[in-house]
Parts: sequence; C-alpha cells; structure tokens
Amino acid sequence: MLTLEGLETPRLLLDAGRLERNCARMRERCRALGVALRPHLKTAKSLDVARVATGGEPLGITVSTLKEAEYFAHNGHRDILCAAGIVAGKFAHAARIQRETGCDLILVTDAPGVAESAAAFAADQGITLSFLIEIDCGEHRSGQLADSPAVVEIARSIDSSPHLRLRGVMAHAGHSYGADEPSAVVAIAAAERDAATLAAARIRAAGLSCEIVSVGSTPTVLFADHLEGVTEVRAGIYMVFDLAQLSRKVCREEDIAVSVLSSVIGHTRHARTLILDAGALALSKDIGANRLLSDAAYGYLCDPHSMQRLGRLAVNTVHQEHGTVLVEDERWFDRLPVGSVVRVLPNHACITSAGYDAFDVVRGGALVDRWERINGW
Amino acid sequence: MLTLEGLETPRLLLDAGRLERNCARMRERCRALGVALRPHLKTAKSLDVARVATGGEPLGITVSTLKEAEYFAHNGHRDILCAAGIVAGKFAHAARIQRETGCDLILVTDAPGVAESAAAFAADQGITLSFLIEIDCGEHRSGQLADSPAVVEIARSIDSSPHLRLRGVMAHAGHSYGADEPSAVVAIAAAERDAATLAAARIRAAGLSCEIVSVGSTPTVLFADHLEGVTEVRAGIYMVFDLAQLSRKVCREEDIAVSVLSSVIGHTRHARTLILDAGALALSKDIGANRLLSDAAYGYLCDPHSMQRLGRLAVNTVHQEHGTVLVEDERWFDRLPVGSVVRVLPNHACITSAGYDAFDVVRGGALVDRWERINGW
Repeated sequence: MLTLEGLETPRLLLDAGRLERNCARMRERCRALGVALRPHLKTAKSLDVARVATGGEPLGITVSTLKEAEYFAHNGHRDILCAAGIVAGKFAHAARIQRETGCDLILVTDAPGVAESAAAFAADQGITLSFLIEIDCGEHRSGQLADSPAVVEIARSIDSSPHLRLRGVMAHAGHSYGADEPSAVVAIAAAERDAATLAAARIRAAGLSCEIVSVGSTPTVLFADHLEGVTEVRAGIYMVFDLAQLSRKVCREEDIAVSVLSSVIGHTRHARTLILDAGALALSKDIGANRLLSDAAYGYLCDPHSMQRLGRLAVNTVHQEHGTVLVEDERWFDRLPVGSVVRVLPNHACITSAGYDAFDVVRGGALVDRWERINGW
Repeated sequence: MLTLEGLETPRLLLDAGRLERNCARMRERCRALGVALRPHLKTAKSLDVARVATGGEPLGITVSTLKEAEYFAHNGHRDILCAAGIVAGKFAHAARIQRETGCDLILVTDAPGVAESAAAFAADQGITLSFLIEIDCGEHRSGQLADSPAVVEIARSIDSSPHLRLRGVMAHAGHSYGADEPSAVVAIAAAERDAATLAAARIRAAGLSCEIVSVGSTPTVLFADHLEGVTEVRAGIYMVFDLAQLSRKVCREEDIAVSVLSSVIGHTRHARTLILDAGALALSKDIGANRLLSDAAYGYLCDPHSMQRLGRLAVNTVHQEHGTVLVEDERWFDRLPVGSVVRVLPNHACITSAGYDAFDVVRGGALVDRWERINGW
C-alpha cells in the first residue's frame, strides 16, 4: 500500500476530497449566478484536476501560457482561453495548437498592433485566430479602459480581418486579492462586471458582435452581488486555496487542498530550530499571506495525517533546500524527531505548485494516486 | 541561424563567455588559496555548466538534492557531495545511485540518530555509505557547534560501523550573504574556516580520520584571507552571479551570466506601465537584492543584444505570468513596442533558474546552444 511515509520528500500533496468539494461549490455558485464557469488551470496545470473542476460538464477552460493550452488541447479540451496577452512571436505556436488539435483557442490582447500583425499572420497561414479584448477594470495591470476609444478601434480592427474572429471582452480584477475583507470585494466585483459589460455594450453599439463577456478571479466570483451581462467567469485558486486566500477570509483552513510533505532533516537545538527539507524551491519565496496573517511566514506546519496545525509552528526562514522552523518549546524536538514528516500549507498555491512535476493525491489521509502537472513555457 | 528574436519567451539565457570567465577566475582563486574547488551545481543543475565549472579537471562536485546527484552520477561524475542533511527515507535512493553508477556519493548529517539508522540500513544492504558531519559556523541554520561533544560522538558513531565511512566535516557560512560589504565577509570566512578546522582537529584528536575539511559559499571563498587547514571549498553562484551578489559587491554587473528573455506584451499607457511576459514564475518572487540595491525590484531590464541597462527600468510588480514595468518617460513606449524583447537580470539566479528546463546559451549576443537543466526532487 502507498503511504505518505514511503514518499521521498519534498512532495506536493493534493487532498482529493477537499478539491472535489471546492470545485463542486464553485460550479454551484456559478449556477446560482447564472454564468458559465471557465476554470483557470494556471494553478493546477493538471489534466486530472481539470476533470474534477469541470465535473463532467463540457466547460471551456482558461490557461495562462501556450504550453498549458497545448497540453490541455492535446488531451481533449476543445475550448481554451489563453488569458495572458499574446504577441506576434507566439502566433506560430498558437496556430500549431489549433492545427494539431482542432481546438477553439481564444487569444487575448489590448494592443492595436497585435490585432494588425495577427491579421497578417493568419491571412498568410490561411487560418482563423480568435480574440478577446482585455479591459482594465481597476487593477491597472493590463487592458484598455472600458470607455477608451481604443476598445472599439481594436474591435473594428479585429472584425475587419476575414482571418480574425472577435469573440468578446475579458476583465480581471486582480486587485481583489488586495482586499482585506470579503465585504471590500463586492465593490471590486461590481467594477469588474461593469467594466466588462460597458466595453461589450460599446462594441455592440458599434455594430460588432461580442459573444463572450468574461470576468473573474476567485474572490470576485464568490462575493459578487450579481453578474448580469456577464457570460462567463474565470477562477482558479478556489480549487485548492492557500494561506493567502485564508488570510483574506476567502476560504477556511479546512478548504486548503494543497500542502508540501516535508521531512525534518535536523534539530539545531542551540538555535531552537527544526530544519526541514522544504525551502525556497519546495515552498516558493511568496510571502503574500503575511500582510493579513502575520504568522503565516513561509507556511503553517500541520500533522501529515490529521492535517491539524502543529501548535503555532511555521517555516520561518527558507534557503534553497532548507526551511527553518523556530520552536519555543523544546518538546517539539521529541514530537518531531529527525526523519519525521510534516505537511506545510503554502502561502500561494500557484507559485508553490510550479516547483513540482506532479501532485501526490491523498484521500482521507491515504495516498491514492499521482497526477502529472506541467510547468514552464 | 538561431536568433534571440526566434525564441518564444520567456526563456532563460546563459552567456557562455561570462560563465567561462567566472569559472576560470574561481579555479584560479582556489589555486591561489591552495584548496580544491568542489563546484556547487545547485544553481545551474546542468551537465554542460558542470563541464565549464570543472574546466576539464577531475573535480568533485556538490549538489543539493539526490535528484541532482543521480543526474550527475549517471552522466559521468564520480565524486559527489550531497550537501543537505540526509534522512532515513532517502537512504534507498542514495544506495541506488551508488549501485547504478559506482559513484562516490558523500552524504551529510548533524544528527546522531541518522548515523545510527544509516549504519543499520547499510549493514542490511551490504553497502557502504560515506558521511561528512555538518558544523554550524555561525549561521545557526544547521550543523553542530564545532566545540560540541556531539561532533565527536557522531564521528565515533559513524566510525564504529563497518558499513559507514567518516570522510570529514563541512561548514557553510550562509550568513556571508547577509554581509553588506566584502570587508565584512573576511571575518565570516575566518569563522567558517576556524569552525571546520576546529571540528576536524577534535575528531582527529579522538583518533579518527578526517580527510575532508569542506567550507564554502561564493563570498567566503572570494574574500577569505587564508584557508589553511581547509581541504576543499564549495561555491556555486559565482558561475553566473545575480543582482543579490551585485548588491553585496561580490560581482560586477558585467559578470552576471543569466538573464530572462522576455517580450513586451502590452502597453498600459494610462498606468504608465509596460507589461512583460516574465512574472512570478519566470523571475521568481525572490527580492533579496533590494535590501542593498533598492531599485533592483524583481530585476533590471537590459537591451537583449548589448546587455546595457535600459535606463533605470526594472520589473516593479509580478503576477504569475505578468511583470509590470513603470516608465516615467513615455518615450519608452516607442523604444519598446509591443512584441519587442528585453533581458531581465534576476535577483537570485538559483531560484529564477529553477523555473526552466534549459538554458538558451548565447555567446557575443548570438544564440549558440541549448543546455538541459533538471529541477525538482
């Protein structure tokens, strides 16, 4: 039988029960909102997780890189939105994915020049490329402002090419992650919705079609008062959650489905520290949860089986392959001998997961499967 | 012909000329110090980089994980020190590497219990496991204090087993990375040397052999006043350097051999930002260089060919696949149009590199090769 103790650490664990519960809840939430769910697979980068997220429904998916798009397209997904701005140097890759898999790959831009070069490329190749126009709803990371003339100009530019297809608009309220309380997310969700629907209305008023009105981020989908005018939502971190989401009260500790299995590799008694084999590469250097959860450090330590927290222990310092845990009470040296294992709840599951080629899947504390993940570009 | 413009970004570039110069300098430095160099491959994780680092000499190497040990052992390396503390759950992997490759794999511990369980495991398997004892020289991360009775106790425990081989001691002055100036490193290097040589002297005084006295970190090797009594040094970041090393005056900007090739994927003019496709995964979230180099942010932007810095531009914010660059002067929008490429000098090359499966190798600005890297555990 597979056991946690038989795994060579560090390993990325995924709790199947928690994942399933989180995914079912989000599908239910989207049904209640009357919008389609287009799960974002940038966190999980896993075909098996995508299967749980879609729950057997023929949902489109969202990805953040063409490598992810290629992986999911080659494994049966037929409706894929690649939600980071495309540039000309990546058109050939996008075209290859479409040609090899027949998938409906939707690209994104906020740049007039990209629409023009895409038209020239697609005409040359005799193919069709589909686009959403990105709208800035207040994060000011990327996107055109919803009331900018550029929105309609880019829409016309795309629509004017017989080789491009204007599919709609997308907005991403990434600043919802900066909100301290769910109550503060309600207004951000409204701004995200309003920006996307305003841009769509302006495109339609110009006589062009705007089939897709896409918004999203886990917090805005969970806390929006309504999403009228929106056709679909993109969200990803809800599948597994993490300490950053816990810190903003977007999830409960028992919803967090990913953790890092790590061994105690040393007791540095004179410094009152336990040393783990989970450091900067196994956990990442993301400490985003600490703004609102000041003891999060690089992650909470939990019992590997019960998943109960081990007192207030956390990974306080990381080096490349070492994590240092300060212990105030020396009895921890007896409770966690060298060679014992713990589970660490990560700050930011998207970044932590990227260090691993696979999830080791647990259910009710038992190791039941291993799910491949992809990484890189 | 291969060109930078033909690469789909983000990509990890390695400047072969800079790498060769950095490696030759370190070998020369070690010759002058009269110590063997055991290059640490935890940064590069690449067979080709190891070839440059050893410079054709039959040098032993250092690694940080058994996966790295396995990779290098299967590719001809015969003397490998795995410098992070081993635990019982990893003995089988270590034994497999030795059995399959015949390599001399040296393990590390500071825990009496590990020596005991290693003796039992090795006896059961009919093999020999080699050990260094880790000594804390002031970083207080891991290791026994040099004057602790535990040092000789662990040495005796290892020596008493016919299946274990006591090879020596190692110390790592990781706190040298916290020094603001090279002058402050001199004392840290002395403490590292003195801790290792004291521990070795105590083991020898107990009638045991202590063939290897290993110290290291790039700063302490470069700035030690002498290393008498030390037999070998471990250093890794010197091969490629990064902004963290630049911030501590351990290298010059023109020594930095790794960079991330990234495309401008958007102009968010209303926020006066350029958006890159190099974000938290392509650059890492390490911002360690900023303590002493307050404008380092997530990395300096450079011209992709000349490697000259682009004004004071840096990656100011990262999301998973987006990097945001603040531009005070709007002329940057013309100079760096959407689709153009830049090179980003990373904060911490060890962590940034871990996002990539390969180095794209450049020489004199031309793309000349692609060198595989390994990641994970």
